[in-house]
Amino acid sequence: MQICDAATSFGGPLCGFSSSSPKILIKGGTVVNAHHLEASDVYIENGIILDVKPNIKVGDDVTIIDASGKFVMPGGIDPHAHLAMEFMGSETIDDFFSGQAAALAGGTTMHIDFVIPPNGNLSAGFESYKEKAKNSCMDYGFHMAVTKWDESVSKDMEIMVKEKGINSFKFFLAYKGSFMVSDESLLEGFKKCKSLGALPLVHAENGDAVFEGQKRMIDLGITGPEGHALSRPPVLEGEATSRAIRLAAFVNTPLYIVHVMSIDAMEEVARARKSGQRVVGESVVSSLLLDDSVLWDPDFNIAAKFVMSPPIRGPGHAEALQAALSTGVLQLVGTDHCTFNSTQKSQGKHDFRKIPNGVNGIEERMILVWDTMVASGRVSVSDYVRMTSTECAKIFNIYPRKGAILAGSDADVIVLNPNASFEISSNSHHSRTDTNVYEGWKGKGNVEVTIAGGRIVWQNDELNVVPGSGKYVEMPPFGYLFDGISKADENYISSLKAHVKIQNY
Amino acid sequence: MQICDAATSFGGPLCGFSSSSPKILIKGGTVVNAHHLEASDVYIENGIILDVKPNIKVGDDVTIIDASGKFVMPGGIDPHAHLAMEFMGSETIDDFFSGQAAALAGGTTMHIDFVIPPNGNLSAGFESYKEKAKNSCMDYGFHMAVTKWDESVSKDMEIMVKEKGINSFKFFLAYKGSFMVSDESLLEGFKKCKSLGALPLVHAENGDAVFEGQKRMIDLGITGPEGHALSRPPVLEGEATSRAIRLAAFVNTPLYIVHVMSIDAMEEVARARKSGQRVVGESVVSSLLLDDSVLWDPDFNIAAKFVMSPPIRGPGHAEALQAALSTGVLQLVGTDHCTFNSTQKSQGKHDFRKIPNGVNGIEERMILVWDTMVASGRVSVSDYVRMTSTECAKIFNIYPRKGAILAGSDADVIVLNPNASFEISSNSHHSRTDTNVYEGWKGKGNVEVTIAGGRIVWQNDELNVVPGSGKYVEMPPFGYLFDGISKADENYISSLKAHVKIQNY
Amino acid sequence: MQICDAATSFGGPLCGFSSSSPKILIKGGTVVNAHHLEASDVYIENGIILDVKPNIKVGDDVTIIDASGKFVMPGGIDPHAHLAMEFMGSETIDDFFSGQAAALAGGTTMHIDFVIPPNGNLSAGFESYKEKAKNSCMDYGFHMAVTKWDESVSKDMEIMVKEKGINSFKFFLAYKGSFMVSDESLLEGFKKCKSLGALPLVHAENGDAVFEGQKRMIDLGITGPEGHALSRPPVLEGEATSRAIRLAAFVNTPLYIVHVMSIDAMEEVARARKSGQRVVGESVVSSLLLDDSVLWDPDFNIAAKFVMSPPIRGPGHAEALQAALSTGVLQLVGTDHCTFNSTQKSQGKHDFRKIPNGVNGIEERMILVWDTMVASGRVSVSDYVRMTSTECAKIFNIYPRKGAILAGSDADVIVLNPNASFEISSNSHHSRTDTNVYEGWKGKGNVEVTIAGGRIVWQNDELNVVPGSGKYVEMPPFGYLFDGISKADENYISSLKAHVKIQNY
Amino acid sequence: MQICDAATSFGGPLCGFSSSSPKILIKGGTVVNAHHLEASDVYIENGIILDVKPNIKVGDDVTIIDASGKFVMPGGIDPHAHLAMEFMGSETIDDFFSGQAAALAGGTTMHIDFVIPPNGNLSAGFESYKEKAKNSCMDYGFHMAVTKWDESVSKDMEIMVKEKGINSFKFFLAYKGSFMVSDESLLEGFKKCKSLGALPLVHAENGDAVFEGQKRMIDLGITGPEGHALSRPPVLEGEATSRAIRLAAFVNTPLYIVHVMSIDAMEEVARARKSGQRVVGESVVSSLLLDDSVLWDPDFNIAAKFVMSPPIRGPGHAEALQAALSTGVLQLVGTDHCTFNSTQKSQGKHDFRKIPNGVNGIEERMILVWDTMVASGRVSVSDYVRMTSTECAKIFNIYPRKGAILAGSDADVIVLNPNASFEISSNSHHSRTDTNVYEGWKGKGNVEVTIAGGRIVWQNDELNVVPGSGKYVEMPPFGYLFDGISKADENYISSLKAHVKIQNY
Repeated sequence: MQICDAATSFGGPLCGFSSSSPKILIKGGTVVNAHHLEASDVYIENGIILDVKPNIKVGDDVTIIDASGKFVMPGGIDPHAHLAMEFMGSETIDDFFSGQAAALAGGTTMHIDFVIPPNGNLSAGFESYKEKAKNSCMDYGFHMAVTKWDESVSKDMEIMVKEKGINSFKFFLAYKGSFMVSDESLLEGFKKCKSLGALPLVHAENGDAVFEGQKRMIDLGITGPEGHALSRPPVLEGEATSRAIRLAAFVNTPLYIVHVMSIDAMEEVARARKSGQRVVGESVVSSLLLDDSVLWDPDFNIAAKFVMSPPIRGPGHAEALQAALSTGVLQLVGTDHCTFNSTQKSQGKHDFRKIPNGVNGIEERMILVWDTMVASGRVSVSDYVRMTSTECAKIFNIYPRKGAILAGSDADVIVLNPNASFEISSNSHHSRTDTNVYEGWKGKGNVEVTIAGGRIVWQNDELNVVPGSGKYVEMPPFGYLFDGISKADENYISSLKAHVKIQNY
Repeated sequence: MQICDAATSFGGPLCGFSSSSPKILIKGGTVVNAHHLEASDVYIENGIILDVKPNIKVGDDVTIIDASGKFVMPGGIDPHAHLAMEFMGSETIDDFFSGQAAALAGGTTMHIDFVIPPNGNLSAGFESYKEKAKNSCMDYGFHMAVTKWDESVSKDMEIMVKEKGINSFKFFLAYKGSFMVSDESLLEGFKKCKSLGALPLVHAENGDAVFEGQKRMIDLGITGPEGHALSRPPVLEGEATSRAIRLAAFVNTPLYIVHVMSIDAMEEVARARKSGQRVVGESVVSSLLLDDSVLWDPDFNIAAKFVMSPPIRGPGHAEALQAALSTGVLQLVGTDHCTFNSTQKSQGKHDFRKIPNGVNGIEERMILVWDTMVASGRVSVSDYVRMTSTECAKIFNIYPRKGAILAGSDADVIVLNPNASFEISSNSHHSRTDTNVYEGWKGKGNVEVTIAGGRIVWQNDELNVVPGSGKYVEMPPFGYLFDGISKADENYISSLKAHVKIQNY
Repeated sequence: MQICDAATSFGGPLCGFSSSSPKILIKGGTVVNAHHLEASDVYIENGIILDVKPNIKVGDDVTIIDASGKFVMPGGIDPHAHLAMEFMGSETIDDFFSGQAAALAGGTTMHIDFVIPPNGNLSAGFESYKEKAKNSCMDYGFHMAVTKWDESVSKDMEIMVKEKGINSFKFFLAYKGSFMVSDESLLEGFKKCKSLGALPLVHAENGDAVFEGQKRMIDLGITGPEGHALSRPPVLEGEATSRAIRLAAFVNTPLYIVHVMSIDAMEEVARARKSGQRVVGESVVSSLLLDDSVLWDPDFNIAAKFVMSPPIRGPGHAEALQAALSTGVLQLVGTDHCTFNSTQKSQGKHDFRKIPNGVNGIEERMILVWDTMVASGRVSVSDYVRMTSTECAKIFNIYPRKGAILAGSDADVIVLNPNASFEISSNSHHSRTDTNVYEGWKGKGNVEVTIAGGRIVWQNDELNVVPGSGKYVEMPPFGYLFDGISKADENYISSLKAHVKIQNY
Repeated sequence: MQICDAATSFGGPLCGFSSSSPKILIKGGTVVNAHHLEASDVYIENGIILDVKPNIKVGDDVTIIDASGKFVMPGGIDPHAHLAMEFMGSETIDDFFSGQAAALAGGTTMHIDFVIPPNGNLSAGFESYKEKAKNSCMDYGFHMAVTKWDESVSKDMEIMVKEKGINSFKFFLAYKGSFMVSDESLLEGFKKCKSLGALPLVHAENGDAVFEGQKRMIDLGITGPEGHALSRPPVLEGEATSRAIRLAAFVNTPLYIVHVMSIDAMEEVARARKSGQRVVGESVVSSLLLDDSVLWDPDFNIAAKFVMSPPIRGPGHAEALQAALSTGVLQLVGTDHCTFNSTQKSQGKHDFRKIPNGVNGIEERMILVWDTMVASGRVSVSDYVRMTSTECAKIFNIYPRKGAILAGSDADVIVLNPNASFEISSNSHHSRTDTNVYEGWKGKGNVEVTIAGGRIVWQNDELNVVPGSGKYVEMPPFGYLFDGISKADENYISSLKAHVKIQNY
C-alpha cells in the first residue's frame, strides 16, 4: 500500500502517477558504471537489479522504461546532508521526508546524514536520529559527530560501529564552544577510528581564529552576511586542513575532509596524496559553482541564503576545485544540504553570527555536476558516476550494493537525458525552503526517471514517494581505505624494532 | 595441435604439462577486478570468460583449477616493452616469443610494443613489426614511434589509426641525432594525434643537454656506467616532462609520459593533474625498486646491466614514485623491458655511451609490484589490478576485453597465491638474457597459474607456450582520455568568439 | 657649456632652470640605502657623492636642496629598456636621448639597453649601439643579444666581456625565425657565459608554440590585439622559464629571467630558488600593475598600446607577482620600455602579429613601484631602493658606484616626496610616444628632484638635460652571482672522481 | 683593570695575552659587510668603529692587527641560545659567562637569550635573567617566552617592550603541560605583539601529538635516544609551522620561526614567503649539518648528546635547508645552544623523555657555517655576514649598531683567515660541557681574532674575557618587518568599508 504525502510545500503533486510494478525493464539506454559504459538493458525485480545485458526479453507484467538516447546510471549518493538538524537555535526546514523527496526528484537515491549527539552522547544521538528518519522515503546512512572526548564516547564509538552500522565519525575543528574538539581529542578520536576501521571526517576550519575573526568584523561594524565570509577566510580552512591531514599521517589513519571549499584546503589534500597519504577530499556543489560576490548582495535575503561554513570563496576557487575534481585530486561531490528558510535566516539580520548556516543542494546536485563537469567537457560520463555515486559507496563500504548497476545491486537507478534541459527555481523545487542558491540556473540535461529501491519515484516531473519506505543502510567498517594499513603499521614497527634492538643501555 | 618450443635457453621446459582443455573452471578464489573484489568462480570456454559467479557447476570435460585462498586476477598488461628491437647497433636478446614466454611465466598476458619505423617510415615499420611478431605466444598491441615530421608521416599516422589498429604515437625528446624530434615536430604530432583520437606518448629527457652531459663525462675521464647516470640527471627529465606537458596543455590533448623515473618528472605530472590536465604518468618497475648505487658497482657487468634511459635515480626517488603511484598521481606500471645480454652490454666497456640501454622486467613486474605495493600495505589488491592491468586496458581503449574478469572478456587470467614466495634469478628466469637486474630479490606471493587466451600456459612452474598463438590486438582511437575534449574546445572557442565579436577595427 | 634640446615633443621645456653648480648639498632628508635608512645630509661635488652624514656645513657656492620630510635615494636603474631599437619593421619612437630624458624626469638615472646585433654580429651591433647612444643624457650600459651560435659569436662574446664592458648576454626562446635560439645554442651560450663570468638573460616563451598559437588565432578570425595575448598564454612562458632554469642548473650557471609576466614563470623561479639555484627573476612595471582586460578594449588604439611580449596577463597574476617581489622571490623591477606610437602600432590593425610589441614605463617606473609597493604597505622604503636600483647595480657588478648613496658613489640621486602626488598622462610625459599605458593613474608620492652625474636635471617639474652628457658604464664580469660557482664545480668534480676511481674496466 | 676567569673548565687559559689598547687598527684586510665587500682598514677607539677606509694612519699607541689575506667581518650574532636555563630538572652547564666565552672564541660577539619566566611571570623572569646575565663577558639581548595568557601577561608584555628593551616574544607549540600555549593564547599573543611592534617567535611542533608519540614509543619498548626523534617526526613540525604561519597571516603580523629543522617546515616558510607573507625562518647549525643516524649510536652517551627539539632529521633535510638558506628562503643561522653534560644527559638513560634537550653550537657556529656555506661555494662572503650577523641585527632592530662594520657601529669585529684550518673537539672547546656534537669536524678557515666591545678577546687561540664586561642591548620595537604593516591594515579596512557601506539591513 502506498502512502502519499499531501504536503503542499512541494513544487509538484506527489502521487501524480500510479504506483509502478515491482518489475521494471529499462530498455535501450547506455548503462554507465564508474568502471564501464555499455549499451545494455537493465531488469529490476523486487528492489534488486537482476540483470544487465542487451536485449532482455520480459513479460507483460513488467513496466518498460524507454531509455533510448539516454544514460542509465546509479542513483546519486549524497555523502553530506543535514536533515531535521537542530542548529543555531533553529531546525532545518527540510526533515528526512521532504529533503529526501527533493533528492529523489533530482536523481539522488541515498544520502548519508550526520547524527549530532545531544551533549555529545552518541547512543542518545543515534536513537534520536533513528526517530527523525522514520518517515524516510529513500535509503540513508549515518555519520556520527564526536563533539567531546571521554571514556563513554570511546565505548559508544565501538557500539556504533559494531552494532549500529556506522563506519565514520566526524570531528569539527570549528564551532568553538559547541562542536569543536581540541587536537588532543582529535588524536584520540583518530586512534579510536583507526582501531575500529571507521573513517574520521573533519570539518576543517580553525575555530579559535574564526571566533577572533567574527569579533573583528563586528568591531569594524560589519554585521551583514559578507562579514561571515570575511571572518573566516581561506587561510583558516587551509590551516585546519593541513593540521587534520598531518595528524592523520602521524596516526596513520585514512582521513576524509568534508566540504573542501578553497584552493588552500585543496592544495593540502593534493600535497598529502602526492606523498602517498590516504586523504579523501569532498567537494560540494556550492564550492564548485559559486563565488562569494553573492554575499555582498544588497538584499539581505539573497545574501543570507548563501551563508554556509566554510564560506563560499572568492573568484578562482571554484574553477580550481573543478580541475582538482576532474583528475581525482578531490574524489567526490556532496552538498552539505542544510536548509533554513528566509524567516530562519533573518534571525541574523543584524548580526551575521546568528544567520543559520546552510545552503540547499540535495535536489540540484546531480544535474549541476552534470552541467559543470560533463557538459563542459571536463570529465567523462563514467567519471560523473564515480564522483556522484560510486566513490561514495566504495569509501563507505556499501559498494556494489549501492553505486553500481550490476546484477545484485539495489535498484537505485536514474535515467538522464543529455538532450533535455533544466532550470532551477524555488518555485518548482521540492525542498521545503523558500529560496534556492541556484535560482535561475539553466543548462542541458535532465534527470527524467528516478528509481529507488526498485520503485519509480520520479517520472514525468512528478514525484511518487512513500514516507517510511526508505531503509537505514548499515555500513560495515574497514572499507577499502583501510586495506593494508595494518600491514604498513606492522612493517613500520618491525623496521623500528630491527633498528633499535642493538641498544642495551 | 600444440607446437612446443625446444629452445634450451629457457629456465624450464616449455611442454612439461599436457595441453589444457578449452574449458576451464577456476574455483573458490577471490576474483579481483579494479572496481571490485568478490568471492567467485570463473568459467572459461574457447578463450572467453563466460561466467563469473559463485558456485558454478560444470561437467567432467572441464579443467578445474583450485584457487582457494588465492587471488584470481586479470593477466597483467605491460604498456611498455621492446622485443626484437634494433637499437644502438644491437638487437634485444629477447624476441617476441622469448620475451612473451617470460611475461607469461610472470603473469603478464599482453604487452604493447613500440614500432620503431626505419627512417621514420611508419608503414614500413608496421610491416616489419608484424613480421617480428609472427611467433608471438601471447596477445600484443603496438605503439608507433614518430621520429621525424613531414606530410607522409602525417598521412601514415592516419592510416595506422584508421586501418591498422594503432591508437598511440611515441615522441622522443632524447636520443639526439636519431629518434629526437624538435618542439615544432612535437606540436605537429600532438595536433595530429588529437585529431585522430590517438594518445601521444613522450620519452621526456632533454636530448641536447644529454648530449652535452655525455661529452662532459667523457672529458672528465668518466667512461663507466656511472657516467651514464651522471650525464643525464633528473633535472633533464624534469625539464622535458614540463615541456611536453605544457605543450600538450597548449594543444589541449591528453598526454602519456612513459617511464617516469624521477621525482622531478613526477612533480610535473602531479602539478598538471592538479590543474585538471589529462596527463598519464607511467612508472616502471625499475623506477619503483632500484637506486643508482648499482651503477657504481666495480664489476662492469653488474653495473652495465642497470643502464637504461632515463637512468635509475638516486635514493629517495623510488619511494616517492611508489607514493605517487599509490594514490593515482601516477597511474600504471610498465617495464621498458629491453634486454641485452652481457656480451652486448660489454660493447660499452670503455664508453658508457655504447652500452645498449635497457633492463629486464617483463617477467618480474607482476610479482615485484605485488611485493612492493601490496605486501607492503601501500595499496589494495584492487588497486594492484588497476595499475598492472585495467588502467592500461582503459587508456588504450581495449577494456573490458582486456583488463577485467567479466563475462565476455578475453580469458587472460592469473592465479596469485599471496602465501607462496618467490625468488628471482637469471638461472631460473625465462628471458634469454643472462643477467637480471632483480637478481636475488625474494618475497611473499607467487603467480601460480597463467591463463592466456583461454589456455593454461603457466602452472607448476612450467611453461606451455605456442609460437604464433598470440594475437595482434587492434586498439581503437578515442579512448576515455578523449572524452569531452572536443566539447571543451568548442566551449573555449565559443567563449573566445563571444568576447571578440565587439571588435571591428 | 650646456646644450639644450629644443624638441617640442617633450611635455615640458628642457631648460627651464639654470644650470646647477657642480657642488650640491641635500639637507635634512632621510637618506635611504638598500641596507639602511638614516637621517643625513648628502654632499656632492664633481659628479661624486663626497660625504653622507648629518649636519654637513658648506660654503656659499654650493646649491642647497632642502629635503626635509623627504626621502633621498639612489637614482633608479632600469635593467631593461629598448631605445632606438629597430623591431618588427619599425624603430622605437624613443631614442637614447628622449627615452633617457623621460627616465630622468621620473627619477631613473641609468638604464641598461640591449644591443641587438645585425645578423647576429656582436661587434657590429656594439658599434652600432655606441653610435645610437651618442646623444645620451644619462649613464647607460649594454646587455648584448645572442641570436645565433657559431665560433665567431663565441669569440665576440669574449671580446665584449674583456674589452667592451659587457657582462650579460640575452637569449630569446621566442621570436621564431628571427631572434630565437635552439636549446643546443642556448647550452653553448650558457657555457660560454659561465666561463666569462657573464650573466645569461633569457626571454622565456616557447617560440614554436607561439607561432602555432598565432596561426590558430588568425584561423579563428581573431585578428585584434586580444589575439596577441590569446596566442601566447602563460603556459608557454611557464614552459620556457622551466626549460631555461633547468638547463642553467645543468650547466651550473647563474641565470636571469627577464620580464616575468605570469604566475607560471614566477613559480618556476621560486621552485629553483628554494632548491638553492641562483636564478634572478625580473618583474616589470606592466606585469605588476596591469591585467589583460585592456587588450579587449573596443578601441584599437587603446588595446594596441598594451601589446608587449610576453603579454600582459589575466586577473591574479599582477597581485601574485607583487607578493613574490615583496619577499625577494623576484628581485628587481624593470620596464621593458619599448615605445611605438599610435601610427606605428596601427600597422597591425588587421593582424595583431604586425603590431610592434612594446609599452612605455621608463619614466613611470619609480613612482608606480612606490605607489604599488610602498604606499600600499607591501615593502619598506629600503626594499624599494633595493628593487629599483641597488639590486640591479649589484647583479651587474657596478655597485657601489651605482645603486648607493655612499661616499665615493656616482652622484645619481633623487629626492622623493611621499606627501606629494602624481598623475600620469601622455599629455605631460616626456617620452616621444603619444600614448601611455598608465594614462590617468594617480597616487601619492612624487620624484621632485633628480640629480644625474652630479647635475640637477629635474626640479620644479622641469627637465634640464644635455645630449651627450650620459656616459657608457662598463660592467665588469664575475658579479656576485658567480661567487663560489667555481668552488662548487671543483667540489662536484672532486666528489665524482672520488667515486669513480675504483673503476678499472 | 682586567678580571680574568680562573675556571679550569675552559680548554685554554683565559688570560694568556696582555690586555689590548682601547685603540685598534685592523690593517690590510678585506672588510665584509652584508651589503658590500671592500679592501679597507678599520679603526677602533673606545669600543666604537671610528673609521673604515683604506690606508688609515695611526699613532704608536694603537694596537695593529694585520689582516692581510683575511676577512674582517662583523662579529657573529647568535639569535638563539639558552644559557643558565633551568629545563627538565637540570640547568644548562653553560652559564652566561662560560657560554659567551665559548662564543667569543668562535667569533660570535653577541647572543640573544630567552627569558623563561617562572610561572609565566614576565617581570619576575626578566629580573631573574638580569641576575643570571651579570657575569656576561659579551653583549646580549633577551627574547621573552610567553607560556600562558592572561591580563597580567598582556600588561607585562607592554612593560617589557616599552621599558625593558625587549622586542620579541616566543610561543611554544610544543612542551605540553609546561610551556605550550593554545591557539587561542597564540592568537592573543600575536595581536599583542603586533600592537607593540614586537616580533612573535614560534617553536613549531604539535605538542599534543608529540606527547602521543612519546607514549607510543615507550609502549613499543623504544626508550633510547632514537625514540626521541621517532616520537616527533617532521610531519609534526610541518603541522605547527603551517599553523603558526597561517594564524600570523590571519592577524597580519610578521612572524619568526625558530629552529627550522625539516623540509616540512621549510616548505611552509617558502610557501608563505612566495605569497608575500613576512615570515622569517631561522636555521640552526645542527639542522644544516647533521642527520639523525647519530641518534641510533649504540653508545648512549654519543646518541644522547644529539637530543634536541625539534629533533635532528633524516638524510636530505640538511642539504635542503642549506639550499633554502643560500637563496634567502631561510634568512639566518642560530644555534639553540643549550648544553647539558654527559651526567645530565644520562638522567634519561632509560627513558628518552628525561634526556635534557639541547646541543652545543655557540662556539662552532661561525666556522661551521663558513665551511658548509662559503667554502663549499654555496654562498658569497657577504651572504655569510648577512646570515650570521647582519640579518639578525636588522630583524631585532639593532642595526647598524650591531651587524655592520661601519663608522659608528659597535666594535664587534672578527678576523677570519680562509686559509687556516680548524678542528673541533670537546678537548679544546670552551664550553663547559664535556661533549661536542661536532666532535672531529675539520675544515678550512679559522676565526683568528675576535674583538668585542672594542677589546681583543680572542687571539692566538687564547681567550681574554672579563666577567661583567658584556652589556645588555636594548632592542627597540617596530623593526623593519613592521614597515608598512599598519598601512596595509588601513588599506584593507578601507576597502572593506567601501564594500560594505551599501548595506543597510
